[in-house]
Amino acid sequence: MSHTLSGTLRDVGEFNLVAALTAKFEQSDQVLVGPGDDAAVLRAPGEQVVASLDMLVQGRHFRLDWSAAADIGHKAAAENLSDINAMGGRPTALLVGLGAPADLDVTWALEFATGLAEEAASVGASIIGGDLTQSDAITIAISALGSCEHGVVRRSGAQRGDVVTLAGRQGWADAGFAVLARGFRSPRAIVDAHRQPQPPYDAGPQAAELGATAMIDVSDGFLQDLGHVATASGVAVDVEKARFEVPEPLQAVGAALGVDPMRFVLTGGDDYGLIATFPAGVDLPDGWRVVGRVLDSGDGTETGMVTVDGEPYEDAGGHRHFR
Amino acid sequence: MSHTLSGTLRDVGEFNLVAALTAKFEQSDQVLVGPGDDAAVLRAPGEQVVASLDMLVQGRHFRLDWSAAADIGHKAAAENLSDINAMGGRPTALLVGLGAPADLDVTWALEFATGLAEEAASVGASIIGGDLTQSDAITIAISALGSCEHGVVRRSGAQRGDVVTLAGRQGWADAGFAVLARGFRSPRAIVDAHRQPQPPYDAGPQAAELGATAMIDVSDGFLQDLGHVATASGVAVDVEKARFEVPEPLQAVGAALGVDPMRFVLTGGDDYGLIATFPAGVDLPDGWRVVGRVLDSGDGTETGMVTVDGEPYEDAGGHRHFR
Repeated sequence: MSHTLSGTLRDVGEFNLVAALTAKFEQSDQVLVGPGDDAAVLRAPGEQVVASLDMLVQGRHFRLDWSAAADIGHKAAAENLSDINAMGGRPTALLVGLGAPADLDVTWALEFATGLAEEAASVGASIIGGDLTQSDAITIAISALGSCEHGVVRRSGAQRGDVVTLAGRQGWADAGFAVLARGFRSPRAIVDAHRQPQPPYDAGPQAAELGATAMIDVSDGFLQDLGHVATASGVAVDVEKARFEVPEPLQAVGAALGVDPMRFVLTGGDDYGLIATFPAGVDLPDGWRVVGRVLDSGDGTETGMVTVDGEPYEDAGGHRHFR
Repeated sequence: MSHTLSGTLRDVGEFNLVAALTAKFEQSDQVLVGPGDDAAVLRAPGEQVVASLDMLVQGRHFRLDWSAAADIGHKAAAENLSDINAMGGRPTALLVGLGAPADLDVTWALEFATGLAEEAASVGASIIGGDLTQSDAITIAISALGSCEHGVVRRSGAQRGDVVTLAGRQGWADAGFAVLARGFRSPRAIVDAHRQPQPPYDAGPQAAELGATAMIDVSDGFLQDLGHVATASGVAVDVEKARFEVPEPLQAVGAALGVDPMRFVLTGGDDYGLIATFPAGVDLPDGWRVVGRVLDSGDGTETGMVTVDGEPYEDAGGHRHFR
């Protein structure tokens, strides 16, 4: 990567920076008008577009001493691409707003953009526009757009008797957070999982095609996000600890920090795996595992309740805002 | 407007606040999935969607002592809806991200949402989703989505010999800024124009239908934004002072502050009027006025240059970021 710009954002100026950033963003054939106009124009197959928006704020969603600029670009893109995945869609474009201090080194912005562009390109999505403004804390706002070939899968369709399934990593990013929070920088695979999550991007459209009844991505925490599905669907669900994978790196971190690694799995967020419910008997492809079931009405459980091995889980955790 | 919530955002909590905000947002029949899922789903007539994203930061784009929460909601929505208008499109939806301090009064957030919802409803657009997060300064990120029935109008199509035209107010918001910056609160019409701009929302699709060759909205400043059209189109343009309207309130503010009111008109932004170029001889409907022309190549002018009555305008002004 060769940079011709140097100095701070103030030194470089808005227009030069926009030009340098835009040059990094390749446009797919889904893009009819890319960056540089009042708005972009994107193809929307089937006359529908799936759209989301998320914000990330320095010090709350990322730390400059824990993650490189490119990591933050990857993660910001991944978090938003995942929202389209969680509807059963394929992301086609991102719009990216960056608020940054005037004394930020331009290299940071360029490497951030490289991370964004790489993550988007990994799923064939283009960065079609955005905004650049001055702010005291680095603030990232991303809108993801996509299409749903197989229809959309909402949170609200889980049915009694369905199986609860999981695709993708779970607990890795939270373990990485725990490691970094104690001042460590290893195991590397775990720390990297926090810095650059690896959402199972093909799993969303796959689940839609397989007839998933409800779906959500795990951003705040497994039990909390599963609770959103249970509440929206008006059902209660139970998961079984024994059905989860607790990979060796998670066990190692748990042992080193004196934490039950199952806690990372059950309460961690930020891996952007997918929780989906399917009618029992579904033939799940590789990458999906059954971890629980939607309870029958006769179980006497409350709507929206999530239990672990039939019991409430002490401190279901998850991310809370405004605390 | 009756609020059942009181206290700070911390008191109320994220989920209660999201529920209260979402309740304000009516969904049009363009919305297939509204707020509350991982992403929204919107109809995209013609298999195309027009999309933009802008950020507004407290203290830079708005001041809490100058504008009420509802004003800021109106303005934030208007600025983004205008981007769709400037492509010749009709906005159909907004996604809204709000970063706010935990000690912000919930009333502010609710009134902000009311302003947003009113402005969006005025053009038939729905607020289909977004994000809420904690940040030190109030930070607003909005993505606007829309459709283009008559095709899109870009910045880059202005042709030699075209007329340069303007729709909507110009200079009002900047005069309002000047008034507020000197500590005054009147004339009310001018201050209100700063607080709640009134973009000419029908003019964009109208210009597209009439065959506009290029278009942009005036957000940073008239001459600066016209310069973007000239640069993108590879032409030079000249505007004539005598062709602009300088309404009585602008004259009054100019007289009171000792400023040539033409300065507000030529360098002001934030009214979100539209600059469009059309082939000479176009039959313009009410609301549009010819203010200049695209120069012929024989004029010896430089590409991207904007002159006023044939001369460079001293300090063309306009908003600069990272200063």
